[in-house]
Amino acid sequence: MRLVSFEQDGKPTLGIREGEQVRVIGDETLESLLARGVDLVEFASRSATQERVSLTDIKFLPPLSRPPKIICVGLNFADHTSESQYAQPDYPTLFFRVATSLIAHGQPMIRPAVADSAGLDYEGEIAVVIGKGGRHIGKEEALSHVAGYALFNDGSVREYQFKTPQWTVGKNFDGTGAFGPDLVTADELPPGIKGLRLETRLNGEVVQSASTDEMVFDVASLISIISEAITLEAGDVIVSGTPSGIGWARTPKLLMKAGDVCEVSVEKIGTLRNVIADEAAR
Amino acid sequence: MRLVSFEQDGKPTLGIREGEQVRVIGDETLESLLARGVDLVEFASRSATQERVSLTDIKFLPPLSRPPKIICVGLNFADHTSESQYAQPDYPTLFFRVATSLIAHGQPMIRPAVADSAGLDYEGEIAVVIGKGGRHIGKEEALSHVAGYALFNDGSVREYQFKTPQWTVGKNFDGTGAFGPDLVTADELPPGIKGLRLETRLNGEVVQSASTDEMVFDVASLISIISEAITLEAGDVIVSGTPSGIGWARTPKLLMKAGDVCEVSVEKIGTLRNVIADEAAR
Repeated sequence: MRLVSFEQDGKPTLGIREGEQVRVIGDETLESLLARGVDLVEFASRSATQERVSLTDIKFLPPLSRPPKIICVGLNFADHTSESQYAQPDYPTLFFRVATSLIAHGQPMIRPAVADSAGLDYEGEIAVVIGKGGRHIGKEEALSHVAGYALFNDGSVREYQFKTPQWTVGKNFDGTGAFGPDLVTADELPPGIKGLRLETRLNGEVVQSASTDEMVFDVASLISIISEAITLEAGDVIVSGTPSGIGWARTPKLLMKAGDVCEVSVEKIGTLRNVIADEAAR
Repeated sequence: MRLVSFEQDGKPTLGIREGEQVRVIGDETLESLLARGVDLVEFASRSATQERVSLTDIKFLPPLSRPPKIICVGLNFADHTSESQYAQPDYPTLFFRVATSLIAHGQPMIRPAVADSAGLDYEGEIAVVIGKGGRHIGKEEALSHVAGYALFNDGSVREYQFKTPQWTVGKNFDGTGAFGPDLVTADELPPGIKGLRLETRLNGEVVQSASTDEMVFDVASLISIISEAITLEAGDVIVSGTPSGIGWARTPKLLMKAGDVCEVSVEKIGTLRNVIADEAAR
């Protein structure tokens, strides 16, 4: 099932995607349903109304606007680690995003108006949404903790990412983390999203292309290893890493500017599309 | 005013500290009050009941258990940057903590039962709690965005902090971020907590001692610089950095073990005290 979070009458609303339409469930959020331990497919099937809206008419919201945490995984494709001039760590490279950085499918991705920044870079990724939380989750049971998957564009302000030893600020500018369009429940996809092609396109040109099989730490390993240290909670999001092809590692550098269209596609999950816009003048 | 978050009848409760007693306000949280834009001193004065409980009888909670974000500042004292063998960055070194890592004053600080970890290190710091949010906050108005201050012990699992280029996991083990005991409202303290002595003691011995005047980026600068990139929200916490003296930089290394008592004291703010405990066997 594909669940869509969108705005209706100014309120966050949940629906089921049915082709080019969205069947309205009501003013629920995935955060709240997951925190209550609700089975999404069962709840949505039971609660969907007969009201349908056209996909082209809705204003998407991120699948979850306020996940308890957003755990990003860096250096999770060996060829990206190499283009970024790091040695491949034998443990997942973790950093957090915060909710203030999130935008939805179709919303502008913001190139910030800060000094020392030439532009914004893309990173196509897959977001794993945790259904059932836990600590010390074994790898063999890890996938049973996943509610579903969505797409993510981990928009990065590179000069800020490398101003200090920690990447955090360059990964957390307002309006740089695109998340959506749908939450695809785990039952619709290969276990651990194995064997799927991930592609990022900038203005129609393919700039990243890889198989999810190339992940250094697969989804089950990430859940198991992270939960050795940190309690995972229902609604937490793990952004699982980007393959090679980022603009910053190219010669000359390829950075996004206002009007550019960036799309992240993964087989069976869909396409996340955002147009780049400059931050409004103050 | 000193506001205390504690548990009463199993519910989060807010009170005003009056010497060795806490005057009960009711089942409010600072997160909720700040999100609603409430003036804390005015609200607490108006809402306090006549019920008083002894400070020694209460179970403290962190001043805020679920801040929208917890922004930690690394390398913010030059002598700590030097002992950590980094060059001093000319921009604040930011990383996030998540709420699952928080513990209160008086709760055990947990030394995790993971492979490759000899122990847990202390980092005495001051936490700045944001009252009024904003983006692009000028330095000259920044302090008007502060609701108050508390103490923080940024407990660090060093081997994990340095497993990859990002410190995040070593800073986010469950039960390692001590926060409290009180939120001291900003009106009670020197503007921007200038000129205060910060001291960390391990089993009674002073292991860190510095003046807040030694911060590379002072509180107003941190708020202004962070908000160039990231919208600050009411209830956000900025953990402002630790001075030199950490155990990991000593020869031999000084790491905390079960039964150790770690205290962080800052003049006019108070003392945060935690006993170290090993993670329970599974």
